[in-house]
Amino acid sequence: MPIGIMASQVFDLRWRRGIKVEDLVDMLGSVGFQATELKRAADLIIDMKRAGAKIFLSFTSNMVSSGLRGLFAQTIERGYADVVITTVGAVEEDFIKAQGGDFSLGSFEDRDETLASNNMNRIGNILVPSKSYELLDKTLHRALLNIINPGDIITPSELINRLGDYCKGDKNSILYQAMRRGVHIYCPAITDGSFGFQLQELRNNLNFQIDVVSDLKNIVFEASPLEKIGIIALGGGVAKHHAILSNITNGGADYLVYITTASPYSGSLSGATTREAISWGKMKNSGRGVTVHGDATIIFPLVMTYVFERVEGSQDRVVGND
Amino acid sequence: MPIGIMASQVFDLRWRRGIKVEDLVDMLGSVGFQATELKRAADLIIDMKRAGAKIFLSFTSNMVSSGLRGLFAQTIERGYADVVITTVGAVEEDFIKAQGGDFSLGSFEDRDETLASNNMNRIGNILVPSKSYELLDKTLHRALLNIINPGDIITPSELINRLGDYCKGDKNSILYQAMRRGVHIYCPAITDGSFGFQLQELRNNLNFQIDVVSDLKNIVFEASPLEKIGIIALGGGVAKHHAILSNITNGGADYLVYITTASPYSGSLSGATTREAISWGKMKNSGRGVTVHGDATIIFPLVMTYVFERVEGSQDRVVGND
Amino acid sequence: MPIGIMASQVFDLRWRRGIKVEDLVDMLGSVGFQATELKRAADLIIDMKRAGAKIFLSFTSNMVSSGLRGLFAQTIERGYADVVITTVGAVEEDFIKAQGGDFSLGSFEDRDETLASNNMNRIGNILVPSKSYELLDKTLHRALLNIINPGDIITPSELINRLGDYCKGDKNSILYQAMRRGVHIYCPAITDGSFGFQLQELRNNLNFQIDVVSDLKNIVFEASPLEKIGIIALGGGVAKHHAILSNITNGGADYLVYITTASPYSGSLSGATTREAISWGKMKNSGRGVTVHGDATIIFPLVMTYVFERVEGSQDRVVGND
Amino acid sequence: MPIGIMASQVFDLRWRRGIKVEDLVDMLGSVGFQATELKRAADLIIDMKRAGAKIFLSFTSNMVSSGLRGLFAQTIERGYADVVITTVGAVEEDFIKAQGGDFSLGSFEDRDETLASNNMNRIGNILVPSKSYELLDKTLHRALLNIINPGDIITPSELINRLGDYCKGDKNSILYQAMRRGVHIYCPAITDGSFGFQLQELRNNLNFQIDVVSDLKNIVFEASPLEKIGIIALGGGVAKHHAILSNITNGGADYLVYITTASPYSGSLSGATTREAISWGKMKNSGRGVTVHGDATIIFPLVMTYVFERVEGSQDRVVGND
Repeated sequence: MPIGIMASQVFDLRWRRGIKVEDLVDMLGSVGFQATELKRAADLIIDMKRAGAKIFLSFTSNMVSSGLRGLFAQTIERGYADVVITTVGAVEEDFIKAQGGDFSLGSFEDRDETLASNNMNRIGNILVPSKSYELLDKTLHRALLNIINPGDIITPSELINRLGDYCKGDKNSILYQAMRRGVHIYCPAITDGSFGFQLQELRNNLNFQIDVVSDLKNIVFEASPLEKIGIIALGGGVAKHHAILSNITNGGADYLVYITTASPYSGSLSGATTREAISWGKMKNSGRGVTVHGDATIIFPLVMTYVFERVEGSQDRVVGND
Repeated sequence: MPIGIMASQVFDLRWRRGIKVEDLVDMLGSVGFQATELKRAADLIIDMKRAGAKIFLSFTSNMVSSGLRGLFAQTIERGYADVVITTVGAVEEDFIKAQGGDFSLGSFEDRDETLASNNMNRIGNILVPSKSYELLDKTLHRALLNIINPGDIITPSELINRLGDYCKGDKNSILYQAMRRGVHIYCPAITDGSFGFQLQELRNNLNFQIDVVSDLKNIVFEASPLEKIGIIALGGGVAKHHAILSNITNGGADYLVYITTASPYSGSLSGATTREAISWGKMKNSGRGVTVHGDATIIFPLVMTYVFERVEGSQDRVVGND
Repeated sequence: MPIGIMASQVFDLRWRRGIKVEDLVDMLGSVGFQATELKRAADLIIDMKRAGAKIFLSFTSNMVSSGLRGLFAQTIERGYADVVITTVGAVEEDFIKAQGGDFSLGSFEDRDETLASNNMNRIGNILVPSKSYELLDKTLHRALLNIINPGDIITPSELINRLGDYCKGDKNSILYQAMRRGVHIYCPAITDGSFGFQLQELRNNLNFQIDVVSDLKNIVFEASPLEKIGIIALGGGVAKHHAILSNITNGGADYLVYITTASPYSGSLSGATTREAISWGKMKNSGRGVTVHGDATIIFPLVMTYVFERVEGSQDRVVGND
Repeated sequence: MPIGIMASQVFDLRWRRGIKVEDLVDMLGSVGFQATELKRAADLIIDMKRAGAKIFLSFTSNMVSSGLRGLFAQTIERGYADVVITTVGAVEEDFIKAQGGDFSLGSFEDRDETLASNNMNRIGNILVPSKSYELLDKTLHRALLNIINPGDIITPSELINRLGDYCKGDKNSILYQAMRRGVHIYCPAITDGSFGFQLQELRNNLNFQIDVVSDLKNIVFEASPLEKIGIIALGGGVAKHHAILSNITNGGADYLVYITTASPYSGSLSGATTREAISWGKMKNSGRGVTVHGDATIIFPLVMTYVFERVEGSQDRVVGND
């Protein structure tokens, strides 16, 4: 029988009172279209977790502006992300929130001229007051002054790790949970944000080097060819690319989950599906991949709730302080 | 204060054991991006229900191929859709399923040549065996023979209503639940499917007319200018357009919810957001609209679960046999 | 050698002074991504034309609101569309323009509240003054009064054909050129627009029937199983579906060109690629298909310019009065 | 009169024999939807050129895999890009092509398993033989050995500039034309590719530092607050973000052109329109922005042809050796 044919039946979804997310996701698996792909993604993450795979998680900075930040922190805390790859904006936004900076809900239709005159910066339907970025400048500057010493040659991942100390006590902080769990956060374009301006300013008075080359070595050695490798890439960009790249010399991923709103038809990696990964050896021949097309702010909470419930549901131990 | 500014804060999402869909959707509202729009859509549907608005629900046929069919039937059954507008493919797929026809889960990547030689027809990642359509031909033919009499002048909505009788006992049937509840199903392109071929064949032996003109009058009179009007449009196409059109003479909608994957940038109505509706008077000046960008197979179950739980949660009565 | 491998090389595009569209499209063919698909679509249309295929052209109404209207008229005039399938909005917009109604260029970002108070209706970045629709109401009413007689049983395609008479002298009118060339325009949802309201009003005083059933027969018999069949579907919706449906009993298309902005991942027909058509027999096994992902207002002019130049370039005769 | 209302009329497009790209783009401006936005983008680039603005051009690596590479080189050569920002993949692909490496045209539907066993790597519908990457490894290694000396502290832009020497004679090489014109190419994630592996390997034997911090300073000082600034961002990702970021301290852009396939609705910067830029001060209050939604392989050639023809059309001098 050809693969994929008559695997199972479409079932009619029906609400029932008090339904749990776990049960809804289970039902979504039989609904078809992206509902089915969502369930398949959840199943694949369960498989990678149960197989003890080394899990690489990539995401973009706008997702940290959003409330997914808490879920990312929790995903790290509970041991479902062993390596994190993201953009420097994500590091910054996590840091701002840990310092108590504001992020408000607005509208995609807000007038940007009005926002500008109110010192609000718009990220889709999220509004960030300029004072949140001023808070970043002030607190990050102080932190970097403490962390960096004259003559230092320091990698981005090391720097970010040390910043975790400044986010202590915020259980929803990605930097803090990563530090606690010994999870490294890689950021291949460390200067592409306020962070870069801070480093540059600091360098006016202090001699030090940011060693980006060593961080590639570091991420490549996070996994070994002997291990199972799982990649969960939310959104695209340099974070997704770096997560994949860093596993090519290890033979490619065994499990590959992409959640994206980008189209594959312009040939971008952001929109590339897991199928394309096969030709490159980014995924092993024996590997399995699922691409979910949709917004991570909806998809990822459903996926991870299902994963957490299923993997930990029958266990007594409670990890974390939720 | 300018509208939309600092309405509320982004909160960090965090999984907790055994979380219900209702609670997750509540939290999604503070996550930002489409998660927030999803919650706003749910809130708007709650508002339209509580205001006693006449609710128009439109969807496309592929959604009935999917497991959303059961949820559509339940939405009608519970009184959250007073008028339904869809394509004839949706009527057919509902009918097939009511007769026991198969719909399987496949993959977006299945080889279509292989499927063709296995008599499987692909709709995204849903596979429909040709024998399901043969079943449709046979059963629909018999039903139409019974329903239509020589000399009849019959509207599409009347025809579809009578087909509900042939779906009895299938609580997940849209046609059946609509018939039970006196909800009319409008189908402005009644010949655009097997249905059309059946009617044509029948006409070779039988003189009758399908009266599409009266159905426009019928749908226009479903609501009055004195009533509150709500429209929930899933996907685009003629169903979405017709739902909106039929309320223009009533002064436009008071509540407008669009869930779509189409882009607004090519100027199609399928991708048009609720904002564009304002210029046309498709939405009242005092009206409110929410557009959620994403796949209805994921968005709509979350939205309706939240709506059902909130509106009915505190009530003792149980509607339907779920 | 596996199909598709090393078919040809990517070449570096380079502008040269005074370059013609024909030459640019030729070069685009070697650029990759959608540029290459665009060229493949043009080549396929050339092939269908040269093979003497019966060509079905479908498009959506927003494209007729746009300046593509003239190109559609010209495509019909020059014999590259033998059958047209569209929505009633397209018929209306063509009619308005033929009567001299205005369509202005605006912005996707125009404030809809302001537009509404200026009696402007927005279609993406096109603005239609309400008086253009008032013009439609008046002129269409008069035309229908002339065309429809008591007791008539008339098909939508017949009605539309007769309207061509009222667009005489406008060489950019689709209705006019179709009438001139004997090309039928099918409109499976004839009541889904002002047209429907007009028909309904007319029926208050006049007994007549709109015979939608016969039009399915008519379109099916436009081609025969012995002919080569080509389908060019711009955008999605009921027009695309009907173009495909009407050729299923003829064995499916030999040539299939889709130009769309819709995503295939929600399982909609609007987003379905030509590959999916294979499983259904919507395209012959020996058939060829190309899907171009992009806005028809840019893609189609490039495609048709290339087609016209190549097919007619070496000929002396000039068709049409351009 | 409210801005944007009745700016001009939609005109019906009509093919005429031998039409030039310049004339077609002119006509597209009056077609509506993305055709109109395309023309507006071209006009804005003409304005920025004529105003003597400092022009920042960003693009993604897949576009250099495509035939746009030649056009990028030519854009630099003719003085329409003063600063370039891209990903390291773009640098690599340009380098490969300059060394004679192959890039073939394939299909989005090619079987990736088959490609893998044929040592072909797929980027959408472009196929890159593994030997092209082997060529990169060999030639880039040699070049870097020559360029980097023990103890060097070198910025990515300096490194890339020196690589231009190894692309001499290839007029379609971005690296070569940038070197010739003194245009700097910035690459904020220099290790995110084969390049990174090469640098890492080289460092095993050689002590040197890649100085990413200085490159932020360098790009910030490319323009001054006294200059007009134009940004042309093709696609999204870190390149787009960096182009914008590096001008924030200069007061934001005066001219902003985005060409993208990404959606604004997930809050990503890749999908952000120029409107969102206003709230951030990424665009001056007096600035103008245009977003074109579509594939750069089609849009950018049309835009730049129009720009070149219009700006240089009336001039006698010929720049470049085309």
